[in-house]
Amino acid sequence: MCGIFGVIQAAGAASTSTLAISAINGLTALQHRGTESTGLVGSDGVDRNHVEILKGHGLVRDVFNDGNVAKFQNSKVLIGHNRYSTAGKKAAINCVQPFVVYTAVGIVAIAHNGELVDAKKKREEALHHGVGLSTDVDSELIAQMIAKAIALNHKCRRDDELGDISKELAVTMSAINMSYSLIVLTFDRIYAIRDPFGNRPLCVGTVYDSTGVATSYCASSESCALPSNAKLDFEVRPGEIVELSRDGIRSVCQMKPQSPLAMCIFEYVYFARNDSVIEGQQVQTVREECGRTMAEEDVIEADLVANVPDSSMSAAIGYASQSGIPYEPCLHRNSYVGRSFIQPNDEMRQSSINQKFGVLQKKVEGKRIILVDDSIVRGNTMRIIVRMLKEAGAAQVHLRIASPPVRFPCFMGINIPTRGELLAANKSIEEIREFVGADSVKYLSVDGLQKAVQKGIERNTTFDVGHCTACLTGDYPTQLEF
Amino acid sequence: MCGIFGVIQAAGAASTSTLAISAINGLTALQHRGTESTGLVGSDGVDRNHVEILKGHGLVRDVFNDGNVAKFQNSKVLIGHNRYSTAGKKAAINCVQPFVVYTAVGIVAIAHNGELVDAKKKREEALHHGVGLSTDVDSELIAQMIAKAIALNHKCRRDDELGDISKELAVTMSAINMSYSLIVLTFDRIYAIRDPFGNRPLCVGTVYDSTGVATSYCASSESCALPSNAKLDFEVRPGEIVELSRDGIRSVCQMKPQSPLAMCIFEYVYFARNDSVIEGQQVQTVREECGRTMAEEDVIEADLVANVPDSSMSAAIGYASQSGIPYEPCLHRNSYVGRSFIQPNDEMRQSSINQKFGVLQKKVEGKRIILVDDSIVRGNTMRIIVRMLKEAGAAQVHLRIASPPVRFPCFMGINIPTRGELLAANKSIEEIREFVGADSVKYLSVDGLQKAVQKGIERNTTFDVGHCTACLTGDYPTQLEF
Amino acid sequence: MCGIFGVIQAAGAASTSTLAISAINGLTALQHRGTESTGLVGSDGVDRNHVEILKGHGLVRDVFNDGNVAKFQNSKVLIGHNRYSTAGKKAAINCVQPFVVYTAVGIVAIAHNGELVDAKKKREEALHHGVGLSTDVDSELIAQMIAKAIALNHKCRRDDELGDISKELAVTMSAINMSYSLIVLTFDRIYAIRDPFGNRPLCVGTVYDSTGVATSYCASSESCALPSNAKLDFEVRPGEIVELSRDGIRSVCQMKPQSPLAMCIFEYVYFARNDSVIEGQQVQTVREECGRTMAEEDVIEADLVANVPDSSMSAAIGYASQSGIPYEPCLHRNSYVGRSFIQPNDEMRQSSINQKFGVLQKKVEGKRIILVDDSIVRGNTMRIIVRMLKEAGAAQVHLRIASPPVRFPCFMGINIPTRGELLAANKSIEEIREFVGADSVKYLSVDGLQKAVQKGIERNTTFDVGHCTACLTGDYPTQLEF
Amino acid sequence: MCGIFGVIQAAGAASTSTLAISAINGLTALQHRGTESTGLVGSDGVDRNHVEILKGHGLVRDVFNDGNVAKFQNSKVLIGHNRYSTAGKKAAINCVQPFVVYTAVGIVAIAHNGELVDAKKKREEALHHGVGLSTDVDSELIAQMIAKAIALNHKCRRDDELGDISKELAVTMSAINMSYSLIVLTFDRIYAIRDPFGNRPLCVGTVYDSTGVATSYCASSESCALPSNAKLDFEVRPGEIVELSRDGIRSVCQMKPQSPLAMCIFEYVYFARNDSVIEGQQVQTVREECGRTMAEEDVIEADLVANVPDSSMSAAIGYASQSGIPYEPCLHRNSYVGRSFIQPNDEMRQSSINQKFGVLQKKVEGKRIILVDDSIVRGNTMRIIVRMLKEAGAAQVHLRIASPPVRFPCFMGINIPTRGELLAANKSIEEIREFVGADSVKYLSVDGLQKAVQKGIERNTTFDVGHCTACLTGDYPTQLEF
Repeated sequence: MCGIFGVIQAAGAASTSTLAISAINGLTALQHRGTESTGLVGSDGVDRNHVEILKGHGLVRDVFNDGNVAKFQNSKVLIGHNRYSTAGKKAAINCVQPFVVYTAVGIVAIAHNGELVDAKKKREEALHHGVGLSTDVDSELIAQMIAKAIALNHKCRRDDELGDISKELAVTMSAINMSYSLIVLTFDRIYAIRDPFGNRPLCVGTVYDSTGVATSYCASSESCALPSNAKLDFEVRPGEIVELSRDGIRSVCQMKPQSPLAMCIFEYVYFARNDSVIEGQQVQTVREECGRTMAEEDVIEADLVANVPDSSMSAAIGYASQSGIPYEPCLHRNSYVGRSFIQPNDEMRQSSINQKFGVLQKKVEGKRIILVDDSIVRGNTMRIIVRMLKEAGAAQVHLRIASPPVRFPCFMGINIPTRGELLAANKSIEEIREFVGADSVKYLSVDGLQKAVQKGIERNTTFDVGHCTACLTGDYPTQLEF
Repeated sequence: MCGIFGVIQAAGAASTSTLAISAINGLTALQHRGTESTGLVGSDGVDRNHVEILKGHGLVRDVFNDGNVAKFQNSKVLIGHNRYSTAGKKAAINCVQPFVVYTAVGIVAIAHNGELVDAKKKREEALHHGVGLSTDVDSELIAQMIAKAIALNHKCRRDDELGDISKELAVTMSAINMSYSLIVLTFDRIYAIRDPFGNRPLCVGTVYDSTGVATSYCASSESCALPSNAKLDFEVRPGEIVELSRDGIRSVCQMKPQSPLAMCIFEYVYFARNDSVIEGQQVQTVREECGRTMAEEDVIEADLVANVPDSSMSAAIGYASQSGIPYEPCLHRNSYVGRSFIQPNDEMRQSSINQKFGVLQKKVEGKRIILVDDSIVRGNTMRIIVRMLKEAGAAQVHLRIASPPVRFPCFMGINIPTRGELLAANKSIEEIREFVGADSVKYLSVDGLQKAVQKGIERNTTFDVGHCTACLTGDYPTQLEF
Repeated sequence: MCGIFGVIQAAGAASTSTLAISAINGLTALQHRGTESTGLVGSDGVDRNHVEILKGHGLVRDVFNDGNVAKFQNSKVLIGHNRYSTAGKKAAINCVQPFVVYTAVGIVAIAHNGELVDAKKKREEALHHGVGLSTDVDSELIAQMIAKAIALNHKCRRDDELGDISKELAVTMSAINMSYSLIVLTFDRIYAIRDPFGNRPLCVGTVYDSTGVATSYCASSESCALPSNAKLDFEVRPGEIVELSRDGIRSVCQMKPQSPLAMCIFEYVYFARNDSVIEGQQVQTVREECGRTMAEEDVIEADLVANVPDSSMSAAIGYASQSGIPYEPCLHRNSYVGRSFIQPNDEMRQSSINQKFGVLQKKVEGKRIILVDDSIVRGNTMRIIVRMLKEAGAAQVHLRIASPPVRFPCFMGINIPTRGELLAANKSIEEIREFVGADSVKYLSVDGLQKAVQKGIERNTTFDVGHCTACLTGDYPTQLEF
Repeated sequence: MCGIFGVIQAAGAASTSTLAISAINGLTALQHRGTESTGLVGSDGVDRNHVEILKGHGLVRDVFNDGNVAKFQNSKVLIGHNRYSTAGKKAAINCVQPFVVYTAVGIVAIAHNGELVDAKKKREEALHHGVGLSTDVDSELIAQMIAKAIALNHKCRRDDELGDISKELAVTMSAINMSYSLIVLTFDRIYAIRDPFGNRPLCVGTVYDSTGVATSYCASSESCALPSNAKLDFEVRPGEIVELSRDGIRSVCQMKPQSPLAMCIFEYVYFARNDSVIEGQQVQTVREECGRTMAEEDVIEADLVANVPDSSMSAAIGYASQSGIPYEPCLHRNSYVGRSFIQPNDEMRQSSINQKFGVLQKKVEGKRIILVDDSIVRGNTMRIIVRMLKEAGAAQVHLRIASPPVRFPCFMGINIPTRGELLAANKSIEEIREFVGADSVKYLSVDGLQKAVQKGIERNTTFDVGHCTACLTGDYPTQLEF
């Protein structure tokens, strides 16, 4: 999972002074999709062989500041990327995106969300064709394929079309499998591209000034990152190449979408922000619906519904509303908690979780609590939360997880812990209950999740809706090549 | 406002290895009371003339790390302090607390929450008695008063009582007016002291290991900072000096409390954490009650109740519960937002707020919204939030503030903006409504707030409960001397 | 100008624990050749597809520390690079060397000292063959040429020869012009390569333990960077490829050297360290000889010879010894001077130089001074030094520059200021004298320099000695292609 | 040892814009006297109760920058301090000077060079009089004594004399023993004070603009820190208080000097900069004379005289000139060496020294070398240098130390290693020779040092010249009180 964003100045706009800030605001709004590193690339719209680049490890707010952002003051075309943490993998070389290459038509920059399932094979091909690769990230591979397509096609190119690489992008798309959403920059335009499975979200929008004049065009992983004075124009269709230029947004290529599609269902469960719109529906509404569906599937009596702040509030409210049991938050989350200190013993580890969560003791004394969370990974935190609630006097703690257990690995860009770490892959529900110390544990069913997701979807007549549930069911949308 | 914390190893404890981490966890839990700077002082319980000190600007998580915390590995007595931002005041010299002085009996360290209303006069006295002061903070003034009391009393002191300065603390308390909660360290004990008005909260608790043996004793601004394996023993009484030694917690002096007391009512409204217990009641319950009281005082029709995340959720839930209108969050708060960039124009300033808050568009379209917040300071953020809700399609936005308007300055340690900045001090309710662009604006009444606060309070027979409402009413608890 | 270094563990060595420190010590000893950035790459000698990399901007001592160096604990083959400041040029992308690429035989890393005179043409060729380039540095270009040669030759390669790329390096050398000294790493060996002109220095040496057993083999820009317990084996010959493996150092390819050679004469004047040996002679001795030659060319009377500390001491001592006038330092150089503050006026700029140099007033009062320096670039510093000497009472100041005036640009890697900045390119000697305020100014003649350089050289029978003096005479060793 | 500096704007000066930069340049020039921390305090000349303060650990160039120096833009009176490293001592609290206190007449700031031999006793007195001390540095003690004197004298003070504390300074001087040189700031003037023993140097000077108008007045530990456009007015006399105001420099008090005086002789040997003038003579000349005297005391035959760069060059040149043996540097010192890495073994420790020093091999082969250094502390570095010279082929290495052996501790501010660490305190000359591996070792005699120092001194008729040689002879200038 990663976050990608692009913005280009509209022909009618007065100045470039705020464009870089728009891009950084967009990356900040997409920070939940990746916190390991961030990067921004900007072109002045004229010089094919120069871009400004700023990349760094850490959060957007730590990498960019007024001082270093000044270099983008003349940038009219910008794309950026937030990288998801890949802790545990061997540290990649020069891995911070967007990936930038000089090609025969000038600089091309690429921001990629997803993971190529056939990366290994494509990589061998490139090396044996004599191309040295300086990183092990997919975006370099895609960049070299584009560079090659550009060189092949270079002789028949007109001088006024140097920034137009739509044909080369289509050639590249034909050669690779899922999954990718791409935002690609040439000196004078941006391309927003979604793979034929529609695995990762991507949308485009137009920013208007107070007089209704379009001032810039944006592409973004999620609609929440469009400026508040922007209109969400549409979600990029599976297999589509959309071009953003100073003259507007237009679809320049539509490849045949896969059927069924394989939009990652975990965008609804966990990744996307509540205030984003995906497949025409509010993400938060889907989460509330998940809670409601869980309550329908459930038969327990209790005094209150609470959540583990902050992420699972929507599901808890949905559960409360369906069950008639009041929603009463009984955990406080301390937003100032930082890195953990080395904890010499169990007692201190509990103290570390306690630093993060505080129990509202007077609320929980003697109460039967339905505690909603959106997922369990290793279960260690949940185990301590349950213990804290019990120590504070809770009569019962019933754990309700608003998504099905994750039992299979993802090869499409989601950094799920290995099977060895996944609680649900290794333990029965009863074993999980025992481990976390709850009085009961229930997960939302796969059917329930799909029902909740499909309820509010905006149907499209030209292709079938479909979601990838591989990590829950083991049904992969494409044959894997290793 | 500041946060203060102290911890001392109990006689029965095995090792000191986790004591500094306990102290840092406590300071982290009190981070909401002050984010400008933080400091920790530790004594090994034996050497009267040496303490370890670590202070720094910024958050607890930024100042402390495994590397520098190692210096406290032999510390058995520790006190710490978080300082509230005093932006706008002339930067103080050497201002980071706890303030540490060598005295005739050894080192004394002081952590102070509050502000001496007669500081200026006391300061002049000290200077004309020939004491050079190296800072302009109250805690140095208090420290010099204690040092002087120690020197005067030094001849009649027994050698085995060098850490006992309770008499000198009582002398010092007699000489100063409100407001202060103090945590004071000598080499082998801690004192927790609250002024006779009870203006700032302070409590003590005992930490037990899993076998029920006491391992340490803590003093803290709020109960939320006690470790989860601690028991809140009691809230320090107005005018009381409580001693924490390796042998336990005991009250060593009780001065006559003021009547009525003047506990700062804003602790309930805004400062304290939801999961703290003050005057025997859960802070979150008071806030929910404030929302409920507001709904009683209100007559408006609406489709949903929402809050400005994250602080005002309790009041919104209370309002929803009392009014029967459903609680439906419709703003997302981005926790990754950092420092603002210099904003060249209005459009960008809106974009900056938009970075922080996202509207759940599909939820608000066509809806009449009751938007609850706990206070309005300058109104600029609220103005943009209301605009964002309206742009997203909200039919009406009714603003409800779960506290009365702040109209008067505080001289007891709360850094309220000047009258010129305070919206409520300068505008009528109608003018505020117009400024923020809402369809209606209402504040909780002072009576309503007092009712909500007193409803759940644990009454004490020895002294009258009383709250300072000076910033709301102009009735100050003590005569001010400048 | 840059500094390059490589080290590989010998078969007889006991452990790798000190190898990275050897490499870092080597880079530190070469710091004078480049202070902008530094990088180190290490292979464990086994894994073809993994290297450890550490790169950063600034000095070696700022980039490397015990913490981050630990990653090289298993590295048996390491190469590093110090980059010279290229202030004024457009900042390059990802420019820190060594440049690392994955190829069909595994990772290849390249450290380059020099500049390809035909880089622009070679670059265009690569782009039009469909290779995307991610930087604008020559070492990437060389890396891609090597990668291509490896792919072409891959089918006939035996499995036990994957680290042997000597043939591919020879192919690459045939395709490029001057200038380069290269240190190249594959997973199990290092190559040290010098261009057929011998433009940049490069040498190899063996490190022995106290029992006389070889423990590692090194390649280095200069002999001063070999550990003190190393023996300088030989200077790499123009056109030679030398291989360093765990089994020792051997020459694997010798291309025909150019005749005459074009070793950069400024290595003697300015770049190399006094304690390095180049062409078999001590660099310091050449500098002393330059001073001696200047004194022979001179006829001035004076009371003392002094130098501008620290670089020109050797020339001053040589001058003093030849002329019989005593060497008496009369300027102190403050080694603690850091970045300059913005200087509001002339007076302050002088004060800034004064921060750097102090005059020994009692020494210079009434004296006729011969002030020796090794070069003048812009003349501003010299102007103020002369003024300071005169203000301190010097009767006369005669400036003697121990190298000829630089009048032509260098295209082989030396970042000489543009003609507009070069004092000597724009002014006559008399104008320079007037500008700096000296009583007389003389430069060493080109003939004098060449005589001084050739006096102590170790003659080699297989090829003619020859030096590039292009920046002094405009005679370039190769036809330039732009 | 520390460095102190002060500067005040003259009545005739145009602006304050460069005054802070002058102060920072002065501190940079005094960096050799202390590198642990640095601080600057500035007053606007009007506000008695406000100063700007900037302090930090590390070098002047690391602590100050254009950004943070801007706060001094209106400062007309500034004093600064560089603190010497006190590694090994318990870290002091809030130790960075100048020490700043509020007193009854406003702020007083103090920069102190030296160490009070009776500090412990004075400290006890202060604590038992009821003054809390917040540090353990002498300057706070002095500050409290001044504050007390100010309060006692306050009633008879005229309102227009608030910045004049000369009487209080005289009272304070009467109460303390050696050693101190002080620079004291009040809001509108600076005092430069030297103890009656004259133990530490201190001088004053006037800065003139190009038209000859005085623009500022300076006080400094050494003359080398006066701006180059300044005139050294005089060295502050033992027991004198000199006042610097906007109207000029004047002596305001002269206490009776001790007889004999006890100026620290190590200022000449080691501490002071070559380009400073002390007791009217150039420090470098004294060092040259030390070398010359050593040669007179010596009878050895050799081929060349060399030094351990950079400090002992003057002595080596003196030795060479007197003995007729040529001065030929044969060690290169690498100025880029930084912190050492943890060295796993002896071999690597040698490599670390080798990083710092390079041998000019071709120079030393077969030569008998007289190696001059100014002192030996632990001998470990010297041992490796001798080994490196021998490995490079030196026939003989004769070590000559241009100062007598240090055998006794200093209680006046010089941080000499403990006896256990001092080579000379624990070993005979023959044992030292054996330890460092030299062919012979000789030290300058105490008589030789005194002769060299007194040769060029400017005699003063009003008091006897005298030098403290306690660390060499054990004769202390004052009775020590502990």
